[in-house]
Amino acid sequence: MAQIMTPPRGFENAEFEIRTKNTQSQMAKIGLTGMLLMSEADVRYFTGFHTLFWQSPTRPWFVFIPSSGKPIAVIPEIGADLMRRSWLDDIRTWSAPAPDDDGISLLTELLSPLASNGATLGIMKGHETGLRMPLGDWERLIDGLPGLQIGDATGLVQELRMVKSKAEIEKLAHICAIGSATFDRVPEVISAGMPLENVFRSFRQEALAQGADDAPYVVGGAARGGYADVISPPTQRPLQAGDVLMIDTGCTWDGYFCDFDRNWAIGPAIDDARRAYDVLWRATEAGIAAARPGATCRELFYAMSAVIAEMDDSGGDIGRLGHGLGMQLTEQPSHAAFDTTVLKENMVLTLEPSLSYGKGLMMVHEENIVVTPQGGHLLTTRADSELPVI
Amino acid sequence: MAQIMTPPRGFENAEFEIRTKNTQSQMAKIGLTGMLLMSEADVRYFTGFHTLFWQSPTRPWFVFIPSSGKPIAVIPEIGADLMRRSWLDDIRTWSAPAPDDDGISLLTELLSPLASNGATLGIMKGHETGLRMPLGDWERLIDGLPGLQIGDATGLVQELRMVKSKAEIEKLAHICAIGSATFDRVPEVISAGMPLENVFRSFRQEALAQGADDAPYVVGGAARGGYADVISPPTQRPLQAGDVLMIDTGCTWDGYFCDFDRNWAIGPAIDDARRAYDVLWRATEAGIAAARPGATCRELFYAMSAVIAEMDDSGGDIGRLGHGLGMQLTEQPSHAAFDTTVLKENMVLTLEPSLSYGKGLMMVHEENIVVTPQGGHLLTTRADSELPVI
Repeated sequence: MAQIMTPPRGFENAEFEIRTKNTQSQMAKIGLTGMLLMSEADVRYFTGFHTLFWQSPTRPWFVFIPSSGKPIAVIPEIGADLMRRSWLDDIRTWSAPAPDDDGISLLTELLSPLASNGATLGIMKGHETGLRMPLGDWERLIDGLPGLQIGDATGLVQELRMVKSKAEIEKLAHICAIGSATFDRVPEVISAGMPLENVFRSFRQEALAQGADDAPYVVGGAARGGYADVISPPTQRPLQAGDVLMIDTGCTWDGYFCDFDRNWAIGPAIDDARRAYDVLWRATEAGIAAARPGATCRELFYAMSAVIAEMDDSGGDIGRLGHGLGMQLTEQPSHAAFDTTVLKENMVLTLEPSLSYGKGLMMVHEENIVVTPQGGHLLTTRADSELPVI
Repeated sequence: MAQIMTPPRGFENAEFEIRTKNTQSQMAKIGLTGMLLMSEADVRYFTGFHTLFWQSPTRPWFVFIPSSGKPIAVIPEIGADLMRRSWLDDIRTWSAPAPDDDGISLLTELLSPLASNGATLGIMKGHETGLRMPLGDWERLIDGLPGLQIGDATGLVQELRMVKSKAEIEKLAHICAIGSATFDRVPEVISAGMPLENVFRSFRQEALAQGADDAPYVVGGAARGGYADVISPPTQRPLQAGDVLMIDTGCTWDGYFCDFDRNWAIGPAIDDARRAYDVLWRATEAGIAAARPGATCRELFYAMSAVIAEMDDSGGDIGRLGHGLGMQLTEQPSHAAFDTTVLKENMVLTLEPSLSYGKGLMMVHEENIVVTPQGGHLLTTRADSELPVI
């Protein structure tokens, strides 16, 4: 196991305080008297509440951000002990699951003063969000609060979360280092003849051995000359000479993700694959150079796509050439022509150029960076400049 | 590595056809002309579309179940290659993410005929569901389809999914066997002095070695005489003589979960812990005996809680004493007083009695069963009848 310096787990209470105050100051600007959050990442961002229990879809969890003061948790009793260890003081619980009243009467009581005043409650209802509670319960909650206005807080919360704190960057750097160490071991633990399923299993075991808390996201492909999609689970087909293998991973440490991939040729690769790799490697270089505060995501996209166009003008349609990274495998913003988000120092991003070649083959190359005035600072160990051969 | 017979991955197309036809026959009975689904489990249930890419919250995915014929997929282009390998014929894609139109115009086109006829579209909006698309996009979709009625399909889909097919039970039995083999190895791979974080990491590595695709859910606790909650991530506190250790895991194989736990005493345990264990072991026996077709979940709950009451009448509030199990770590039904679901043959369930003792300590015991006319058939290797000592 590589010796990787481990940062402290969790955050100081002061960090949650700053996040909350910054949010409340933005809420005041757009006229939100309170905000109701319910996704794993949003709840954790304001409370530090960190549990794998979100994998159970049965129970909803709520955090209310008032216009001033600490957040208020409205959560199932099963999480009370853990939430009491957070910086919150006001934790309201019910015995969940309770199909007839899964937190709705507690929320109604909490939100009634806002409704009486005709105030506006912010919720996350925009791009890249979901409603992590039954839609029927949401409708019932709102029907029971006449006078309450609903505002969209998506932009506000996403904008704050996009820029990472020093402690968050330490965690992200740590898991990227673990991911890099894991990829370094791949040529030693895999070989031609190994079924792809076993390749992925070995990768997960190695990621844990290197210090990852988990490797929840391991996808990729391997086929002669290249692969055709980038989100499939592994098949049992053995690796063969002439294959191009890609593994894309989201490993986690203390609730933060890395998200990057590596490509290898199993034995000598066809020229097209080597050329695709070279183009994507240089597209990433262009992305690293372009990732400066003040540039837009659109400009970052064009910096990379200009290089990709040397070989392919369709782009290998994965929809964008990278994205934000943090508590989620994929976060705002998107490196795409539609995204005019202005980059800020300490945003953590993936650079993920892709292209199509041959008959339906594609290649994806990915690194993780933090935005600095000097351009993207790599959190991952830069991939070889030529397609490596196993 | 234990030699565990591995069933085939995936399902025959005939299975998806049966699921769809059964659903369509129930849809007709309650007056649904179509159904729009968007959660990972619901989409996979009808299509077989299986990818870890759901971990990225950026893109929505949709499947429409018409009143007859095959389901229709409306999905991001990045998933097209994988979805084309399914039994579906009609796959409509867009280049996602696209904040201005993430599938909405494709859905509007698909659903317009229903709206014109004033037909009812079923969606999942009841207990244990969420809306896996932006609420704003949902509102926009519905506003653009005047005349369309919305019906709640939650009961219909959950009722069908609760009863597992032979192929599903094989997968569940397989991952339960892998989980059991992993728990068997715990006394060999852990020891006093080991930080809990390392205990959990070793458990994950062992689960992979035993053949799990992943061990996404590993929670538990260890403290003197017992633990205080059951959903926390591990601390770095070393295991000590006098501790009770609990590990609760959801491991996966081919997209199906086991969900059970085991308790151990590190060195001799206090009497209360040993007694709690004995009570919970016998409560589970009562649950196994009661899990027959025709009994209700409420009856199953009372069969277990009658035994638990020997020691504790508060119940250790985890809200219920077990639940359904399948593609999700927790599924319908709930073993609780509020749930009058009638058990049917081939439902796969957890039995999860818990109790409180001492000053704020709790214990949870869990097994996985399939309902048969003879009572619960264990998929897990039954826990020792006395609290095992490491």
